[in-house]
Amino acid sequence: MDDAQTPFRPEARNPRGFGDRRARDLRAERAIVQAVAEVYEAYGFEALDTPAFEYADALGKFLPDSDRPNEGVFAMQDDDEQWMALRYDLTAPLARFAAQTWETLPKPFRRYAYGPVWRNEKPGPGRFREFIQCDADTVGSARPEADAEIIAMAVQGLEAAGLPRGQAVVKINNRKLLNGLLSAAGVSSEGQKLAVLRAVDKLDRLGPNGVRLLLGEGRLDESGDFTKGAGLSAKGIEAVIAFTAAGRGSRTETLDAIATVIGGSAEGDEGLKELQAIGVALGGLGVGEDRALFDPSIVRGLEYYTGPVFEAEALVEDAAGKRVSFGSIGGGGRYDDLVARFTGERTPATGFSFGVSRLAATLRAAGRSPGGEARGPVVIIAFSQDDMAEYFKLAGDLRGAGIPAEVYLGASGMKAQMKYADRRGAPAVVMMGGDELAAGTVTIKDLDQGRALAGQVSDNAAWKSERPGQATVPRGEMVAFIQRIVAGK
Amino acid sequence: MDDAQTPFRPEARNPRGFGDRRARDLRAERAIVQAVAEVYEAYGFEALDTPAFEYADALGKFLPDSDRPNEGVFAMQDDDEQWMALRYDLTAPLARFAAQTWETLPKPFRRYAYGPVWRNEKPGPGRFREFIQCDADTVGSARPEADAEIIAMAVQGLEAAGLPRGQAVVKINNRKLLNGLLSAAGVSSEGQKLAVLRAVDKLDRLGPNGVRLLLGEGRLDESGDFTKGAGLSAKGIEAVIAFTAAGRGSRTETLDAIATVIGGSAEGDEGLKELQAIGVALGGLGVGEDRALFDPSIVRGLEYYTGPVFEAEALVEDAAGKRVSFGSIGGGGRYDDLVARFTGERTPATGFSFGVSRLAATLRAAGRSPGGEARGPVVIIAFSQDDMAEYFKLAGDLRGAGIPAEVYLGASGMKAQMKYADRRGAPAVVMMGGDELAAGTVTIKDLDQGRALAGQVSDNAAWKSERPGQATVPRGEMVAFIQRIVAGK
Repeated sequence: MDDAQTPFRPEARNPRGFGDRRARDLRAERAIVQAVAEVYEAYGFEALDTPAFEYADALGKFLPDSDRPNEGVFAMQDDDEQWMALRYDLTAPLARFAAQTWETLPKPFRRYAYGPVWRNEKPGPGRFREFIQCDADTVGSARPEADAEIIAMAVQGLEAAGLPRGQAVVKINNRKLLNGLLSAAGVSSEGQKLAVLRAVDKLDRLGPNGVRLLLGEGRLDESGDFTKGAGLSAKGIEAVIAFTAAGRGSRTETLDAIATVIGGSAEGDEGLKELQAIGVALGGLGVGEDRALFDPSIVRGLEYYTGPVFEAEALVEDAAGKRVSFGSIGGGGRYDDLVARFTGERTPATGFSFGVSRLAATLRAAGRSPGGEARGPVVIIAFSQDDMAEYFKLAGDLRGAGIPAEVYLGASGMKAQMKYADRRGAPAVVMMGGDELAAGTVTIKDLDQGRALAGQVSDNAAWKSERPGQATVPRGEMVAFIQRIVAGK
Repeated sequence: MDDAQTPFRPEARNPRGFGDRRARDLRAERAIVQAVAEVYEAYGFEALDTPAFEYADALGKFLPDSDRPNEGVFAMQDDDEQWMALRYDLTAPLARFAAQTWETLPKPFRRYAYGPVWRNEKPGPGRFREFIQCDADTVGSARPEADAEIIAMAVQGLEAAGLPRGQAVVKINNRKLLNGLLSAAGVSSEGQKLAVLRAVDKLDRLGPNGVRLLLGEGRLDESGDFTKGAGLSAKGIEAVIAFTAAGRGSRTETLDAIATVIGGSAEGDEGLKELQAIGVALGGLGVGEDRALFDPSIVRGLEYYTGPVFEAEALVEDAAGKRVSFGSIGGGGRYDDLVARFTGERTPATGFSFGVSRLAATLRAAGRSPGGEARGPVVIIAFSQDDMAEYFKLAGDLRGAGIPAEVYLGASGMKAQMKYADRRGAPAVVMMGGDELAAGTVTIKDLDQGRALAGQVSDNAAWKSERPGQATVPRGEMVAFIQRIVAGK
């Protein structure tokens, strides 16, 4: 250390858009990932982790909301001057892996994965550039049943993560429907089709009339910015709007409504047939109308989807009974061209991705604590340096009984130690001063009761009458006494 | 997709030094992380995740084996031209977090963390640039008991991860001992001290005589490269060598041996006193001589350690009874200056880091499977498109009983489906053709038995006599039948 020569002190701060996560958030995230991974494994999907980096050419131009390579990702050049980038999702790396190892894989190849992804976007309040996704994908099956199964897992995953029936729904659409409709209306340019997709994607925010402008000549927003439109004819615009409004209360009714507005192109008919087959398979999988609906207004932003697309939405009520909408908490679809980018051979694939951080935030807003509340350890007060070995033995006894425990290892006195225990959320503190040591006893202070009396938990009366706030017990009874406190008895 | 305009096909390959991890490896890694995290939580350490990126100035010059900033890390410039780098360990981000939030933290602050770290080093066979660490640290305690507790957790973590007593050891040294010895020998330059540390670090590889050369004028290796030495006097060299050889069979004996070679400097005496206190605390924590030893030859490469240093080593025998040494599988120490880089205020801290990937490889080499063997799902054969809904119901019944199951969703025939099931490691396949459907039965093929008869599991005779290779049973008995197969009965 040559601090004398380097007086520079960096400021301790997070890079912009990158946050730290404390125990409460991590408990929730881990509980969600665990629950969803168990669903994926129950369906026969195997774990696969790909690295943080991919070569930039492997990520290609399929970046979120961007046509240009390296935009939206964190990229850097390796020693040998090849460009690498951090993965922006878990799908592009899977496509690379599948292309690379295809000959050796059991097919269809079914994998799940979870972990961080990184997006080089403008950070803002609540807008992070690193977040956790949890995906399942089937590569090598063109069957609509493979899509239905992915949807069934999404539905079951939502439930396992803590959103019971009625509080979440998966909405299903098919890119081929809108493509077919546009072909029938004489639109053939990919750019124009993309502009239509982007316009429809704004339906929630702008409503049908705003979207009409974006489908036609363009739209001037409040700030005076003009967005060029897709340039559809009036007839084309109304056809698109009618299509997006074809959602009904049941899957069969929606398919009927779509049929009346979509007919006349091979691609549209194919899309309708696929949705019909998905609907049949969902029935076989036991996924009812209350959990998975057809909804023609769903778009999904990513360019690489080629057929069915899925979007999961939470319909959660908060503690006050008010419905809180967090929009999309996951999505996916079929991407039959992504592996072909490498191999030249079309390889059908379909998958779904949970936004774990978003799902955790949704559950929190609904007043739930996935993974339960974080509890602190029992804290053993450190009175005297001479008796540290005795304190450690007490802590060891508690740990042996499955109760997290620690000896206070700071340099402060009794009062600060009590405050420390309280801030850690300790259920109890254990005190063993000279008197207790001589008598073979310990004194236990019930901090949970203190919190109850302070009104932090319900049913105060029961606590007050039945639990002593503090008690001195023989050392051999310490564990049992604290077990009762931890169990809330 | 405008493939016609972009005929470029990227090669599907991993970036150099970055690997994919399949189910078997992930099961092992996750089991290790889970077991070690449970030990950390039992000691009262709370979870904290910091992001992948830190500002480069926050990582500072404390890079592994390097004095120069940005060497050894993956760094890039953000939009606003600030340099960010991926974390190369979990300690530097903790120091940043502690400095940033110190006023709001309960103190001492005890946290654990696990996740990937990245090092921009030359990749090679088995040398990856991304790997998993699992750390625990106490910030804000100068007590030797805090070090002892970190060592106790390392010892218990090794055991929980699958290395029982006698198969792993934590070795402990103190930087202050060697520093004191060098001060007494008249060495005061930090550069010279660092050269001594680096020389001692090569003891395993070069032996005492090779290290003597590096401590003195320098050493010419087999390839003709000359490494400049630390320039110690002959007396200084022998003092260092005698110190590194002071390890004995018991902690007390080693401390006595160190005392005879180290005396005469305040720093050395302080180091000895700290080790004595750590020894006493280890006794109180129930950590015996067979699990944690003092060893003056341990150095640890990182510059930032200021006092005690720890290193975990596996002593594993492989299936043939041969001892396999994987060297260090984790390490740590006290780093009292790392938080002060930000705040200017000395903040004592100590911690330990498991190399999870290394630990998993060690266990594998010893013939163990942390997390158990990965099992495939039961595979339902797909005979006819018309009956897919029935197949899905069978899969649903199995999943409902906690047995992973899938319906084959590829396009191949019966023979390929059986091969698929075998490659997935399916315990059984379920067949329900027209006859079975009409009769309300299913035919179950016991693939586990097939593997047993092929000699892949032991005790063939029992399998052959007691289990039918294939059976047709009523649909209502399918789950119970397969439960017996999965249970190995």
